[in-house]
Amino acid sequence: MLRDLIVENDSKIIFLVLDGVGGIRAPGFPQTALEAARTPNLDRMASESACGRSVPVSAGVTPGSGPAHFALFGYDPLDPANDAGRGVVEVTGAGFDLLDDDVAIRGNFATMSKEGILTDRRAGRIPHEEGVRICRKLSEAIREIDGVQVIIMPVREYRFGIVLRGEGLSPEIDETDPQLTGMKPLFPAARVKAAERTSRIIAKLVKMIDETLSGEEKANTALMRGISRKPSIEPFFDRYRLRGAAVAAYPLYRGVARLCGMDLFDTGFSPAEEFETVRSIYGGDRHFFFIHIKKTDSYGEDGNIEGKIKVIEEVDARIPALLDLEPDVLVVTGDHSTPCAMKSHSWHPVPFMIRSRNCGRDASARFCESECDRGSHGIFPAKSIMEMVLANSGRLKKFGA
Amino acid sequence: MLRDLIVENDSKIIFLVLDGVGGIRAPGFPQTALEAARTPNLDRMASESACGRSVPVSAGVTPGSGPAHFALFGYDPLDPANDAGRGVVEVTGAGFDLLDDDVAIRGNFATMSKEGILTDRRAGRIPHEEGVRICRKLSEAIREIDGVQVIIMPVREYRFGIVLRGEGLSPEIDETDPQLTGMKPLFPAARVKAAERTSRIIAKLVKMIDETLSGEEKANTALMRGISRKPSIEPFFDRYRLRGAAVAAYPLYRGVARLCGMDLFDTGFSPAEEFETVRSIYGGDRHFFFIHIKKTDSYGEDGNIEGKIKVIEEVDARIPALLDLEPDVLVVTGDHSTPCAMKSHSWHPVPFMIRSRNCGRDASARFCESECDRGSHGIFPAKSIMEMVLANSGRLKKFGA
Repeated sequence: MLRDLIVENDSKIIFLVLDGVGGIRAPGFPQTALEAARTPNLDRMASESACGRSVPVSAGVTPGSGPAHFALFGYDPLDPANDAGRGVVEVTGAGFDLLDDDVAIRGNFATMSKEGILTDRRAGRIPHEEGVRICRKLSEAIREIDGVQVIIMPVREYRFGIVLRGEGLSPEIDETDPQLTGMKPLFPAARVKAAERTSRIIAKLVKMIDETLSGEEKANTALMRGISRKPSIEPFFDRYRLRGAAVAAYPLYRGVARLCGMDLFDTGFSPAEEFETVRSIYGGDRHFFFIHIKKTDSYGEDGNIEGKIKVIEEVDARIPALLDLEPDVLVVTGDHSTPCAMKSHSWHPVPFMIRSRNCGRDASARFCESECDRGSHGIFPAKSIMEMVLANSGRLKKFGA
Repeated sequence: MLRDLIVENDSKIIFLVLDGVGGIRAPGFPQTALEAARTPNLDRMASESACGRSVPVSAGVTPGSGPAHFALFGYDPLDPANDAGRGVVEVTGAGFDLLDDDVAIRGNFATMSKEGILTDRRAGRIPHEEGVRICRKLSEAIREIDGVQVIIMPVREYRFGIVLRGEGLSPEIDETDPQLTGMKPLFPAARVKAAERTSRIIAKLVKMIDETLSGEEKANTALMRGISRKPSIEPFFDRYRLRGAAVAAYPLYRGVARLCGMDLFDTGFSPAEEFETVRSIYGGDRHFFFIHIKKTDSYGEDGNIEGKIKVIEEVDARIPALLDLEPDVLVVTGDHSTPCAMKSHSWHPVPFMIRSRNCGRDASARFCESECDRGSHGIFPAKSIMEMVLANSGRLKKFGA
């Protein structure tokens, strides 16, 4: 239905996602971070916006960041077609464009004793430069196994990506990470008969990695995780007639955006740096600018409400820089809640606001949970946000006469 | 999806249902019963809860008590698999565990003239003890018809239950209740060819009942209603990994709870007695305690707002007794609305609140329609309540990475 209503135009949309921004009032936390933060700019924007709270996946369901972002971009997170494995997301986020038949693996460098027992599943969290150096070493040593091309790339710190490229591969392979130290890595077992060759190739790959890294102090082995193949996700432009640009520093979010067909841009981590990146690419034939702020989630996971408040205030201070770009539509929301009281992602609805000439200002006076509860959008599924974005940007024709 | 996310734990859930508790403001009714009632304990609980209003079946649809309760327990009331006939519900509520092939009938004792014309479809609402006596008399006289076992049991007052047990039975039989006095009872006609034998057996049964009761002054015949077979409802424990206990005085609610696999407990009718029953069975390996309060609905049906207010205040006064049990999750809601202004069930959304450590307190300051409209749950389908119960009790893992 939606597809038939979409028209193209040149209006611009800024889509600002504060990861895990939602919170809850709970014992010891009389206010959420959004309620406690001083946010004059977000508050002014709220009074000019239509507000509400979004449910990322389903009532009571706590989403991971992947499904939560797919929902924000309008892709049903419960549709298996939109289920991207972690290997695919990480490799894509590292800037690698997978072919349909490639198998992608998320690797963790790890430390193993002489007896083959894991002593550190993250290789002492080696610095990023070390990860880059070790990946280069592996890339030089391992290029092909049994006729299958092996591509190795750094992601961040102890995390790296592997792509197997060749015919007859299958992603139906068990992970080798036992999730605990004091154990040996697991065998990359085939889950189906058609995956047996791939299983043998990955087992050989692990052996070759171990041999190549035998002299390393910390990163002397690697765990194979999230073995997966690219899902057939309909590109953003085909779906919405929007050319998307992603300004995100972390691989996972870059990966999801890229899988949806957005262009990726390198950026620093701070809101100031990210907003500056947006400014530098703003305009031209791009329509949709996704900005991802990570630290709201990280501080939520740490239960550090002061830290979370500080990031929110830092974003708030830079909101005028976004408004200066005069976007036709400006959305501020989160992908899910990460209440400091819970130190984890949660199922609670996520504050949402959308500002445009015709958004329909409502009674919400601030950008926070309790004020967004008063908003004109109510409590609604996150996957419908993109429909509102299209409407507010003048891209949806009337349905019926 | 949900099933893959469920983990077991030992947290306790109290699920308090005030039947038909919702109301509407209407001419002559400037406040609903919940708005008019003095409810300091429910109000304090609201300020510590996440609130909202649930839609039992679908917008604008007025539910019966059966579908409304199935929705509360998370079973889609529009799925035919969850469609339990009234015979099945009454017999099950009377404590009888049906086999898959049994046919259950809800019987009404009635009064018939010598000419076979119905003069009272409820046999003058004979007292419960009379119903028990007459059922005993029937049970002694009628044990088998054409090789099919006949089990007769009292339910309440003029209502009783019949189970036919044997091979080749079918529930595809018309009811014999003409719904009006001054008419003869209808023939229990077969709707399909495979039901013809059952039709003959039920016709014989009616004849035997009439003969056995010929000397009775009031209950001298019986109407056959809700002829049905047990639906294949997935048990509560299989579905949620929750062991459920039902504290309900009325057969229908006991029946629905039992069909969902909950254990039934005998209890008095008053909130005080029901809460005391909960206290007496609380703990151990049970997780979910369903309490059903009937009188809010009865007074709503009578249009008696003073009566409805009084029951609500009586429940309110006993809320501390539930809180003393320190449940991890406490839900207070209704199955549907029964506005005094309408003297009937209605389609209006039902006040809902859920209290747990991590519920996310919202701005709702009272437990009533207008304040629940301000809650963080919004207006939502009743069948999603169980997902929220699972989330709040820590029983749902994260979805996706």
